Amino acid sequence: MLTVSSQQSEANLHWQALSVCRSEREAVQRHKAFIVWFTGLSGSGKSTLANRTEQVLHSAGYRTLILDGDNIRQGLCKDLGFSAPDRSENLRRVAEVSSLLLEAGVVVLAAFVSPYRAERQKVRALFHDRDFLEVYCNCSLAACESRDVKGLYRKARLGEIPLFTGVSDPYEPPEAPDLSIDTENDTIEVCVDIIVRRVRSATEIR
Amino acid sequence: MLTVSSQQSEANLHWQALSVCRSEREAVQRHKAFIVWFTGLSGSGKSTLANRTEQVLHSAGYRTLILDGDNIRQGLCKDLGFSAPDRSENLRRVAEVSSLLLEAGVVVLAAFVSPYRAERQKVRALFHDRDFLEVYCNCSLAACESRDVKGLYRKARLGEIPLFTGVSDPYEPPEAPDLSIDTENDTIEVCVDIIVRRVRSATEIR
Repeated sequence: MLTVSSQQSEANLHWQALSVCRSEREAVQRHKAFIVWFTGLSGSGKSTLANRTEQVLHSAGYRTLILDGDNIRQGLCKDLGFSAPDRSENLRRVAEVSSLLLEAGVVVLAAFVSPYRAERQKVRALFHDRDFLEVYCNCSLAACESRDVKGLYRKARLGEIPLFTGVSDPYEPPEAPDLSIDTENDTIEVCVDIIVRRVRSATEIR
Repeated sequence: MLTVSSQQSEANLHWQALSVCRSEREAVQRHKAFIVWFTGLSGSGKSTLANRTEQVLHSAGYRTLILDGDNIRQGLCKDLGFSAPDRSENLRRVAEVSSLLLEAGVVVLAAFVSPYRAERQKVRALFHDRDFLEVYCNCSLAACESRDVKGLYRKARLGEIPLFTGVSDPYEPPEAPDLSIDTENDTIEVCVDIIVRRVRSATEIR
């Protein structure tokens, strides 16, 4: 009975100890959970690489989820702007959600400009090294701006977007990323292949 | 090449259209994603039922994750307290995380006191009816208080915990929950069985 308090107390402890844990989920799905964190300027290819990487991994039977501005800024973080404290809180929440997804067994593909080194380090500090891959989408500002797929650089230059990374707010490149991808010169296929290999290796259950 | 801007623009659209979606994940894992929202007083059995339900579902091959105060209040919502606006923001974030987990294909077991009717309705409004089951853990305050598994009611009566639901802050019972579980009189097995049946039925891919 739920109402027998002493039994209930023991029962609770018992059941909570038996809770399903990450390694049990990983064993069932046959791969480890993992976080791939894409950082880089707007237009450097973060979302493109995350999308294509997800397709390849999903087709290979991996459980994946993309976290990016589109699904975070319009939902969980819609109360936040782009000031330094708001960017910090945005990334803190993304990191906490990544942590929950890691517990759920998912390979998280997080694509965020994440321009400040200190903020990226705060994110990283939440995780074991074995669970986390920082991928720097290395592409010059000139190249990103010349693509300007979303027309954001033009707007930023016209002053229509304040605090735009690379134009009116700094981007601090990673000093020692786990992976630096040359998204300026390499094809998407080459970039994705490099990332997928690393994910496969890191998520293998030996 | 990532650098050929007109091609890149088309390629981006193409890839984003091809992004892995919820129904593809559900097809692979052979069950739909779903949200079970447990509401009720502290001590009414929410976490116990969520834990035991997860064990049963996980053993049957379902992808699950529990969201509760333990993993939310210490992480994603550690900046929040228990005032009405903070409770509201807490539940908003939990609902947004549930939405991401739904997209990831997971059966979410969310166990939160969620004492205010209006706040529960805000959560519910984010989801299709077919994706959401509100489970009221129906147990009298007297019974919850007499169990007092965590010793919280005692502390609340002594005034050591302000804004404690049922003691110094109201609990508004659901008027039309999808499921009302008599956690005061029924055994845990009976309660879990009722919930698992509903989840199986709601997550079946026909």
